[in-house]
Amino acid sequence: MSTDLDPEQVSGALDMEPEAFRAAAHAVVDVMADYLAGVEAYPVLPPVEPGSLRPRFPAAPPDAPEAIALILADYRTLVEPNATHWQHPGFMAYFATTASGPGILGEMLTAALGQNPMLWRTSPVGTELEGVVVDWLRQALGLPDGFDGLLTDTASTSTLIALAAAREAGGADVAARGLSGRGELGPGLRVYASAEAHSSVERACMTLGLGRIGLRRIPTDEQYRMQVDALEAAIAEDRAAGLWPIAVVATAGTTSSTSVDPVSAIAEVAERAGLWLHVDAAYAGAVALLPDRRGPFAGWERADSLVVNPHKWLYTPLDASLLLSRRMEAIRSAFSLVPEYLRTLDRIGPVRDYNEYQPQLGRRFRALKLWFLIRWFGLDGLRRRISRHLELAAGFAEMVDADPDWERLAPVPFSTVCFRWRPARLAGRTDELSVRAFLDDRNAEIIDAVNRSGDVFLSHTRLADRFTIRLSVGNLRTEARHVDRAWDLLRQEARRLDGRPDG
Amino acid sequence: MSTDLDPEQVSGALDMEPEAFRAAAHAVVDVMADYLAGVEAYPVLPPVEPGSLRPRFPAAPPDAPEAIALILADYRTLVEPNATHWQHPGFMAYFATTASGPGILGEMLTAALGQNPMLWRTSPVGTELEGVVVDWLRQALGLPDGFDGLLTDTASTSTLIALAAAREAGGADVAARGLSGRGELGPGLRVYASAEAHSSVERACMTLGLGRIGLRRIPTDEQYRMQVDALEAAIAEDRAAGLWPIAVVATAGTTSSTSVDPVSAIAEVAERAGLWLHVDAAYAGAVALLPDRRGPFAGWERADSLVVNPHKWLYTPLDASLLLSRRMEAIRSAFSLVPEYLRTLDRIGPVRDYNEYQPQLGRRFRALKLWFLIRWFGLDGLRRRISRHLELAAGFAEMVDADPDWERLAPVPFSTVCFRWRPARLAGRTDELSVRAFLDDRNAEIIDAVNRSGDVFLSHTRLADRFTIRLSVGNLRTEARHVDRAWDLLRQEARRLDGRPDG
Repeated sequence: MSTDLDPEQVSGALDMEPEAFRAAAHAVVDVMADYLAGVEAYPVLPPVEPGSLRPRFPAAPPDAPEAIALILADYRTLVEPNATHWQHPGFMAYFATTASGPGILGEMLTAALGQNPMLWRTSPVGTELEGVVVDWLRQALGLPDGFDGLLTDTASTSTLIALAAAREAGGADVAARGLSGRGELGPGLRVYASAEAHSSVERACMTLGLGRIGLRRIPTDEQYRMQVDALEAAIAEDRAAGLWPIAVVATAGTTSSTSVDPVSAIAEVAERAGLWLHVDAAYAGAVALLPDRRGPFAGWERADSLVVNPHKWLYTPLDASLLLSRRMEAIRSAFSLVPEYLRTLDRIGPVRDYNEYQPQLGRRFRALKLWFLIRWFGLDGLRRRISRHLELAAGFAEMVDADPDWERLAPVPFSTVCFRWRPARLAGRTDELSVRAFLDDRNAEIIDAVNRSGDVFLSHTRLADRFTIRLSVGNLRTEARHVDRAWDLLRQEARRLDGRPDG
Repeated sequence: MSTDLDPEQVSGALDMEPEAFRAAAHAVVDVMADYLAGVEAYPVLPPVEPGSLRPRFPAAPPDAPEAIALILADYRTLVEPNATHWQHPGFMAYFATTASGPGILGEMLTAALGQNPMLWRTSPVGTELEGVVVDWLRQALGLPDGFDGLLTDTASTSTLIALAAAREAGGADVAARGLSGRGELGPGLRVYASAEAHSSVERACMTLGLGRIGLRRIPTDEQYRMQVDALEAAIAEDRAAGLWPIAVVATAGTTSSTSVDPVSAIAEVAERAGLWLHVDAAYAGAVALLPDRRGPFAGWERADSLVVNPHKWLYTPLDASLLLSRRMEAIRSAFSLVPEYLRTLDRIGPVRDYNEYQPQLGRRFRALKLWFLIRWFGLDGLRRRISRHLELAAGFAEMVDADPDWERLAPVPFSTVCFRWRPARLAGRTDELSVRAFLDDRNAEIIDAVNRSGDVFLSHTRLADRFTIRLSVGNLRTEARHVDRAWDLLRQEARRLDGRPDG
């Protein structure tokens, strides 16, 4: 590393000098490119114990400046190897987030350009390009032009915004008057979501003052889909009890099993009951880029709002969540406040100030990375990659189905397979309590052993109270050999733990 | 630009090939470095009308991939010139956010490494380095080690988290039971903040279900500081009316005038009343890096929580807000939910999963850029820069004070000066209604003309119902010549609009 990278090169400069920045940034690019080229050499999960890393950093901050070369060297030895490698093709846990090449380029420029598109005036291009990209995504998803929206940080925030808007749209005037001490609201507001809906729905209810009690979980059928008759009955029952139903959250692609609620039937119920319908398609929504795979989403065009996360299956560096809504004014009424110091004096005609549609005032310029990656991949390129992931998951499901010692535990509508080891010799005995406990323990041991290999990272859930291994394909680098490797490891560890010879 | 930058270089690769990424990223670095070197050539505010940019982008997304060279060329012609240049040394509006060189390098690596430190397991180093950096900042601010904390996106979120924790700490059990239909909460929960407190406090009350009515604004004195006796009286009055006071927000550095509430006296009141004390030092807190300038913050060590934004005056690319608290368990009780699919099986000993302390599940790895920039600047380097900004503002205030045609409208405890044009000939007449209206209009014209110059960008507010021009120094590139230029432009435009010859 050259001496260009010494600290505070010059006396006068208050920021790093542009030419020193240029040299340092070129050095950083090489670290980044080397990492992406070599990421597969790392174990997906770093072999470190909690609490072991912090003591390796100085307990006190430095008073004197340090050279970039030194910081970068520490980055390579202390930071990079101790990351969980979401960029690794063996990352098949949770839902993947790949920071794609063009997305990273967009983030680089975002960092240097330093925009804050809270007001149109504080970033005209940040504001208007967000409008462009939101509409590009709307079209790509096959949604009608009545939908408008914004980019938020996470699905948690998108869903919170949707439910805050529902709280207003129901006529309860909560933004102004709050929830306490108001007899006309009855014992409380209610949101409905399936037993399999994401924890972010419950957390939004906590944040919004509805409480965990404000979320009523509707039972699911044997395929983990919301039971629509149970939803309808719950709404009627709550209304009779004086509660105030405000919203239904339908999930297209739940987190545990990626099950799909019957969105059309739920939309019917929501419309009849006058409730806000929010569709959580944070993970699976990307599949709607494929026109022939839009079946699971039928009915979402009737939603009041919906969320799809580009930072999941659209290869966008964290963070980027797309919130679309047909009722932007309800969202605005939930959050808008314009104090004098944010008023713009030269405002001509209708200007969108995006901060009025979210809990935060400040915002990142998230549209830029999406503009980069949608153009670089093209919609066709994105479709090709999503299709490939669907195929890889289907192939894995076939292997599970074909093996008598393994059991698939849910349908595979997208790219996530839920399964467990269940040796053929136990067929017919899996309802016994001792067998259930044995299978739970053994599958936990299997996944632990597989993850310790470093080649792949799988996560787990519980379905119908059974310990369930999940394999979810969504990393841009994942190929058939990685899925095959996961399968080999799973079978190998199951045999080893079962005391049977390998092979 | 080389042919290396063609789209989708190779058949097999699902992401951009590492070597193509390397070439593209080096090209992007040159765009970034050129921008930072030449930013002063741009007008701070781009001379564009609302709605004029969107039609310059294609209405529909591309199906076919496009080359990075093309996207980057469009970036230079469509995006860069139409940004509001927060990186420009003439940016003296609102509060500055500078994305410093080392901060940008940190963001680049963050984008490539693709971490999501929602759980320890999903980013061991992201989690533990956040602990390191949060503690470095705590020490730098001179706060005792009873404070722990986390990095959030914005002060809006930090304050929302603090007030959600206050909602729990007060014993109302809102996360579980909500706010509606609960007689024991009386007519409602109350938060107290001064009339000058930031809109994010009010927005947090809206989001949290307290409503705008849930915030009681306490009057300020002639220097825009909360009146502590009025606070005490308001709490007593509300208690008598059956309301449930939960928190006081004291501001050290308000947004309009950067006034400082008497934090120690407010801490006394809050302690006596059993209320959560949150201190909003989002902008000014950086000054506490200077041990001899800690006077305005005296008493904040008694706060339950406080917020300082590194993405304001600590030169950190957006987003990064530091929330410190002595009561992390109250924060956790407001947000924590651990569904099965997020449970970690191999958890040994105490592990911090940061998602349990915030409304969102997903999180960016914000600690990395802070680790880079604290090391590169060193605390001494940061102190030197903050001191320089304090000096520049003091110098500007002196020039205003020395000119009989101008009037300073608030003290200058930090780097922000509030003032207006008020010609000497009107001395003694500024209380007349017609004179007030004239001064308001004329000062609005002056700031508009000054901003149209392109050399500087100032914003405004209202203080004691007077139109007030604000000049806030916080950009890393701002030097004396930029502040002098602002002063020349202000006087020049005032003279021109007043029909007097220039000079």
